[in-house]
This record gives sequence, C-alpha cells and structure tokens, in this order.
Amino acid sequence: MATIKLNNGLDMPQVGFGLWKVDNAICADVVYNAIKVGYRLFDGACDYGNEVECGKGIARAIQEGLVKREDLFIVSKLWNTFHDGDRVEPIVKKQLADWGIDYFDLYLIHFPVALEYVDPSVRYPPGWHYDGKSEIRPSKATIQETWTAMESLVDKGLAKSIGISNFQAQLIYDMLRYARIRPATLQIEHHPYLVQPELLKLAKQEGIAVTAYSSFGPASFREFNMEHATKLTPLLEDETIKKIASKYNRDPSQVLLRWASQRGLAIIPKSSRVETMKSNFESSNFDLSEEDIATISAMDRNIRFNQPSNYFPTEMLWIFG
Amino acid sequence: MATIKLNNGLDMPQVGFGLWKVDNAICADVVYNAIKVGYRLFDGACDYGNEVECGKGIARAIQEGLVKREDLFIVSKLWNTFHDGDRVEPIVKKQLADWGIDYFDLYLIHFPVALEYVDPSVRYPPGWHYDGKSEIRPSKATIQETWTAMESLVDKGLAKSIGISNFQAQLIYDMLRYARIRPATLQIEHHPYLVQPELLKLAKQEGIAVTAYSSFGPASFREFNMEHATKLTPLLEDETIKKIASKYNRDPSQVLLRWASQRGLAIIPKSSRVETMKSNFESSNFDLSEEDIATISAMDRNIRFNQPSNYFPTEMLWIFG
Repeated sequence: MATIKLNNGLDMPQVGFGLWKVDNAICADVVYNAIKVGYRLFDGACDYGNEVECGKGIARAIQEGLVKREDLFIVSKLWNTFHDGDRVEPIVKKQLADWGIDYFDLYLIHFPVALEYVDPSVRYPPGWHYDGKSEIRPSKATIQETWTAMESLVDKGLAKSIGISNFQAQLIYDMLRYARIRPATLQIEHHPYLVQPELLKLAKQEGIAVTAYSSFGPASFREFNMEHATKLTPLLEDETIKKIASKYNRDPSQVLLRWASQRGLAIIPKSSRVETMKSNFESSNFDLSEEDIATISAMDRNIRFNQPSNYFPTEMLWIFG
Repeated sequence: MATIKLNNGLDMPQVGFGLWKVDNAICADVVYNAIKVGYRLFDGACDYGNEVECGKGIARAIQEGLVKREDLFIVSKLWNTFHDGDRVEPIVKKQLADWGIDYFDLYLIHFPVALEYVDPSVRYPPGWHYDGKSEIRPSKATIQETWTAMESLVDKGLAKSIGISNFQAQLIYDMLRYARIRPATLQIEHHPYLVQPELLKLAKQEGIAVTAYSSFGPASFREFNMEHATKLTPLLEDETIKKIASKYNRDPSQVLLRWASQRGLAIIPKSSRVETMKSNFESSNFDLSEEDIATISAMDRNIRFNQPSNYFPTEMLWIFG
C-alpha cells in the first residue's frame, strides 16, 4: 500500500476512506466493509456526527482479527467550537472515547474559524450556529492558542500527528512562525475545477503533506442547492474525464482519484457500496501519462464549493476570500 | 470631496494618488502637481523607494500655501523586513523623517510576510531578498507581534489610523481575535479581472474600509513579463469597458475607477501626466447605472497579478493560495 512520509517521520496511507456524510444507520457496516476491502486510513471528524458508529465498525474488524489497531490510521478533526485552548484536550478525549481508541494517528483543526464553546451535553456535534439555527458567535481564540493546545496533544500521546484543514497560504505562513510542531498535513478541497497549484507548491516547499477532499468536485455539494454546483457539468460526466477514462479502460472516478494521487496527494474517497469502495481503492493501480495529468490540471476554474457562506447564505462567514 | 468614514471615526478621502513606481527623478513634481489638481490622499510605502521625494513635493505645496499638513492624508506602509515588534517604531520614525512629517494619517502592514531584518544602512528600501538578489529569509515575527507594535504607533501618535494590505479572509478573522485596535482599512488588488466579492463582503461586515490598487488590472504588471498579464486584453482596451465609456462619454480609465468607487471602495490611481491626473481625479463626477456596474463585475476571472511568486519565480513565495 502506497504511503506518504510525514514531516515527523511517520507514514500515512495515501488512499483512505472519507467519513463525511456517511449515514449513522449504515456507518459501522460501511467502515467494517471498507476495512475488508483494504482501507486502513479513515478520515473522520466531530462534525460528521458518526464517530461512535465509526468506532463500532473498527471494533468489529479488530474483534474478528481482520486488523489490529496499529494497522489502522485514524484521522479526526477539532470542531470550530472547541478552539479555546482549554477545550481542546477534553473534546479530543471525548472523541477518542466515541471511537473506542486511545490515540488518533492524525488530528486536524477542521477550519480556521474559532467559534464560541457549545457544551457537548447541549448539542453534539455543535455545527456552525451557537443556537443550532442561525446565530454564529465567534470565540476569542487565536489560531496560535489553538495550535499550542494541539501540540500538547502530541506531547500527551493523544495524537501521533497534528495538522490543519481548509487553511490558506497566509495563515500557514503565520503558523509556521510560531509552531513548535509543524503541521504534518493540510487537508483541502481539490478537484479539476479547483487545482490550487500555488497552495500545493507552498505545502511541498514547507514539507506539509496534502490530502484532497471532494475529489469528484461538485458532486458532493449538489444537495446543498448551490447554484454553481448544480450548473456545472459533474466531473464524472465531463467529456475530457470520460475520454481519458476510456483510454485507460478505467472509471472516470478512478481517473479523478489517480490524477490527485499521482501528483502526490493523499485521497479520501467515500462510498457506501462495496464495489465502488473497491474501485476507488484500486485507483492507484494504473498510471496516467504526464500529458493526461496536464490536460486534467488545465480544467482548473478556481471554483470552490466548500465556502461555508455558500451553505449559510444569511450568515456571511467568508472564510475563503 | 467624497470621503469614507473609517471605523475609528476619522474620514479618508475616497480618491487618492498612488505612489508605486513613481520615478524618483520626477516624484516631487508629480506629488506637487497632484496636490494642485486636487488630490489630498497620497498612498506611499517604504518599498516604493521614493518617500524622500514625496515629502519634497508636499513640502513645496505647503510652503506655497496650497495646502496645510492637516488637509493632507498621508498613507505609508511597513515593509516585510520590519515586522519584528521592536523594528516597527524605529522604521516608522525614519519614514516620517523621509516625508518630513510627524505622523501618518494611515499606516499599513504592506504584506502579511515577515522577513528577516535588513538594516536601512545596509540597503534601503530592502526589497524581498535578504542579500538583495535571491535569498529570502523569513523572520519569526507573527502577525500578532507586528500588529501589537502597529497599535502602539496609534498610542504614540505616530499614526492616526492603522490597517493592512494584501491580507486575505482567514488571516483577517484571526487578527480580529486579538486586535485591540481593529484595522481601519484593507488595501487589495482589485479590478474587473479580480473582483473579490467574498473579501469585500467580509470587510463590509467587519467595518473595514477597502482601498483598491491596480484598478486598471494587468497594465501595472506588463513590465514584469508576467505571461498572464501580457496575454490578457488590457482592461483599458476591453470592448465592454470601451462601450460603457463611450455611452457616458468618459475615458475607459474613468469607468474602471468609477466602477470601484461607486461600489464603496477607495481608489488610488497614479499618473505622471497632469491631464491624466485630472481625468482620474474627476472619475467620481458621474454615475454608472447599476446594470453597467453589474456588467463590469461579471468580467471577474479571479486573476491576480500581484502574487509575489510571479515576479520571483525561483523563490516560490506563495502568499495567495
């Protein structure tokens, strides 16, 4: 299995399984099946609201002897409402308890957005809104305060590696000024409509591994009724992608994933169907030509879907701008 | 003269004069002539290397009784090599001495990039490179450290207002967590090829006035041999802009400036020709229809020219990504 060497010397599987929007009702089975297919990295988050079920899936696989804990690479993320320095460790411990494990292989700051604390007993996962509906309340926590608390997770063995998600260049440069432990990974939206060459070059230069999410582009966002997501040709139906796929006798989804992994990125596709899990997992078993990689990269339109303000139009939280 | 009310209650002229790339040989005359034309805001910077000459221009105008110091609104900027907290006040004092004034109306962090200190006696302005040629050396200063030093400039009366330039959303949100004095303005590249609607909405929501630079788009960057700057239709020759200009019996340049100012932005065009100075200064004497404003805004291609890595290709300093 291909791995990426992180800047702390640890290895991360390059192909993982993404847990965003995996229904609670089927989540334990999905995770269990994914392990059977061969997935070892699972990319979860407090915000996905399914960590208990994810934990059940891996517990069953461990119990049946399919894998040991140390064979797995479990990723989770700090939600926005837990950015205050003193909130980080308690919530990580709760998340670990939900998974039924005693350390994360990788723990990320989910968004560079510090929101006011919401007690898990009041609402969990808390989401973006303080009141659960419309009010967004910032907290005073700086990214430095949060990162310092993240670093202490490593010191205490609660996370083997720490990283960031949805961070852009300027904030990364600023972090690198004060980080005692540099971020091991950066997770970002990445697909042929949002190629982000500058950010990838920065990450490479600074020794930060990059994980791509939403590799199939607008497909993940159509349910939010986002105008530009519904108007665009779905990447899986794009003629360029389809033509390249038929040339290699592969599925368009495999082409999209291989385009990312061949450029050195980690990928975390999701599927609840075992056949699709297999297809995604096997996307690294062929190579695109440099020319085809360039053709796909040239589809870049700098179109981002995961701008939080897109799904909270009245709130105007403009993170990317 | 139209002004913008800053978040500290002070007024800033909406139309100002930009001093980037004004040749030292003619700079004093240019500034003097601009004052005669009616300009009151001058947008300078350490990095422009012409602050002494700018100062001579205003000194002559004041000496001749054209204006008083308090009629003028002098803007300058902190260069990257002076981000360390203890370097800020000394360099501001040097810049004030160069101008021959005792306070700036507005002082901005030029870029969110902290570079190692270069003593003014060694090289001034220092530019991006530590050795003056190829080596870029970061400093350990965080933006918080720099901003704290900026705040003390206000406390000491060395700057009436402070702000930022070339900052993007995530770093602004982070700053607003620790800022004792909120940034009064944000100066950004802004033209019909880079409309930045999200960043403008964020600034409006947070009470930060926005100043547009490079209002004519690629024109300012053609000399750097930037491929995308030379390939694009210059905005002043764009058919849409020309058509709108002839409809109002105005110059294309006035249309580009009015499009920005009518949307609430401050503008800082530059010209060494008195006729052009006048034309730019008078760009606010007419109104575009809402429809024409929308037509111009729809030209957005999200193309940025002032990505420092564009003019230092071997250095790979990817600020915007």
